[in-house]
Amino acid sequence: MKSRQWRTTMDNNIVISTRIRLARNLKDYPFPCRLSDKGKAEVDEKVRKALINGNSAIAKDFQYIDFDNMSETMKVSLVEKHLVSPEFISNTSGRAVLLLNNGTVSIMLNEEDHIRLQVIENGFCLDEAYDLADKLDTLLDEQLNFAFNEKLGYLTQCPTNLGTGMRASVMLHLPALKKSGAMNMLANNLNKLGLTIRGAHGEGSSSEGAIYQLSNQVSLGISEKSAIENLKNITNQLISQELKQRETLVKSIETKDKVMRSLGILKTAYIMSHKEAVNLLSNVRFGISTGLIDNINIETINDLLVEIQPATLMTILGEQITVKDRDISRAEYIRNKLN
Amino acid sequence: MKSRQWRTTMDNNIVISTRIRLARNLKDYPFPCRLSDKGKAEVDEKVRKALINGNSAIAKDFQYIDFDNMSETMKVSLVEKHLVSPEFISNTSGRAVLLLNNGTVSIMLNEEDHIRLQVIENGFCLDEAYDLADKLDTLLDEQLNFAFNEKLGYLTQCPTNLGTGMRASVMLHLPALKKSGAMNMLANNLNKLGLTIRGAHGEGSSSEGAIYQLSNQVSLGISEKSAIENLKNITNQLISQELKQRETLVKSIETKDKVMRSLGILKTAYIMSHKEAVNLLSNVRFGISTGLIDNINIETINDLLVEIQPATLMTILGEQITVKDRDISRAEYIRNKLN
Repeated sequence: MKSRQWRTTMDNNIVISTRIRLARNLKDYPFPCRLSDKGKAEVDEKVRKALINGNSAIAKDFQYIDFDNMSETMKVSLVEKHLVSPEFISNTSGRAVLLLNNGTVSIMLNEEDHIRLQVIENGFCLDEAYDLADKLDTLLDEQLNFAFNEKLGYLTQCPTNLGTGMRASVMLHLPALKKSGAMNMLANNLNKLGLTIRGAHGEGSSSEGAIYQLSNQVSLGISEKSAIENLKNITNQLISQELKQRETLVKSIETKDKVMRSLGILKTAYIMSHKEAVNLLSNVRFGISTGLIDNINIETINDLLVEIQPATLMTILGEQITVKDRDISRAEYIRNKLN
Repeated sequence: MKSRQWRTTMDNNIVISTRIRLARNLKDYPFPCRLSDKGKAEVDEKVRKALINGNSAIAKDFQYIDFDNMSETMKVSLVEKHLVSPEFISNTSGRAVLLLNNGTVSIMLNEEDHIRLQVIENGFCLDEAYDLADKLDTLLDEQLNFAFNEKLGYLTQCPTNLGTGMRASVMLHLPALKKSGAMNMLANNLNKLGLTIRGAHGEGSSSEGAIYQLSNQVSLGISEKSAIENLKNITNQLISQELKQRETLVKSIETKDKVMRSLGILKTAYIMSHKEAVNLLSNVRFGISTGLIDNINIETINDLLVEIQPATLMTILGEQITVKDRDISRAEYIRNKLN
């Protein structure tokens, strides 16, 4: 029998990250889409004060980020890192973000709802992420009057968020399941269980690099704990299925060829598109997880997957460059990290 | 101005090898296609004796190779190395080869003609190769009665070989000219000059890896020296054109990307077809010639291009294997040579 320790390592290899998001609104204000600039400014100020006055140790580590003077590249980079939503940066007027310094917590103000509180952590840790989100929610709740209804739970602009106002999700690396061709059938089955699986950037995004986002869809008539338990169970089943598929896959010389070539190309290329990089890094990540590659940390690959995204790469390099030059810089950045 | 030394190096980088082939027949015997087994055996013995009795130092280094007990793989490997013709191994009954130990000279007996004497040397050395062929031809001529006519020169089975009975050819690596798209036009122009340019294995073979064989077509009404001068001049022109095309090509990042990726894949792949290997080795060979790669000898690549051919690889490994296993062995062989 495989040890508990081994399974924990594999869980964290397959689950790249865990996210909890809570949608909240202040009772005395209309939803942001119907709120005046003045109203938005008041919401903004109330939430900031609540956080600071909350007398929690964590509060002083939040950074208030004003989007008015931020470059487009910087904004897109925050989306790439899943710290704000694409919808959020489409029109940042009257909006702001409170960001925990280490990047694990972001609080979007005046997006679809007044408050979108998000905790994002590495690996498979739904309970830990929920605990932190819950703690921050309680802290804010003590000072703000949240719109809440006995029957409907937390009131949100979009009815699909009514109830707990919670979305819990995990980012999964499922190369073996993707290769097996089972993903479409799995997606249909998951839908019936109140879950949805999509590309890394949510609805409509591609599953490049076999990276998927699995999240709960039901927030009404179910407690946060139940929703999390449900997601946890399904995730564990997906991990088991992925591990089972990997068993045969990892023994084939074709797999070794694909993995080692991918590493060879990443170490030597001088031009690389984002799409190619994601797919090659995914192959290498699989190689590390399965022991085909042993001299590279999986964290290095996780970091690269974030850093080589177009806007994030430009933010790191500190320059506005053409697509071609970006592909050249990306190849160089990867070579330097892997050689 | 580029130095003479540099140009000599580039000549030998672009011209992989030089070949001279002479077709000769004994006056007193019909051509092999109309010759009895007894007659073939007599021709065989006469030529061997002439070589041994020729009292030349080189004669003792010849090996007489009987094809009756040779495996199909071994035969094909000799074709891959250009030591015998594909036609020769299609029916080896009554045929044999005298092979100089270092592989630079082969004398096919009872192929299309009684004698097909070939000298093959590395680099661009038409005069040297012709001198050796001429020396051996003279040695044989002193003891054998060659079929010769004042008007038609050396008599050969196929009229296209009448006259000198000589084919001179060079094996060229022309990646920049191939990429420029100029090869088709060049081939047409060369035809008008009495030369022909084809894939590495002659008529109908592909130009995989941008390797071409340029040879003279006219043997009647022209001296050996004139034919060689003509081929030398045209080869020099092709080298100049290739070098000119390389100048711009080598500066582009796309070229560097292609060259370095090719090396990366060759060093890491676990399965590799012959076709892929030829193309990747060709890219690396170009990279070495142009200074993009400086830690690999061009001779290593030249050797690999010979060794990784299907039958030759199996001869080296000493085993009959499936195509898939051969592709695995090829990848391993290349990894070991390059890492």
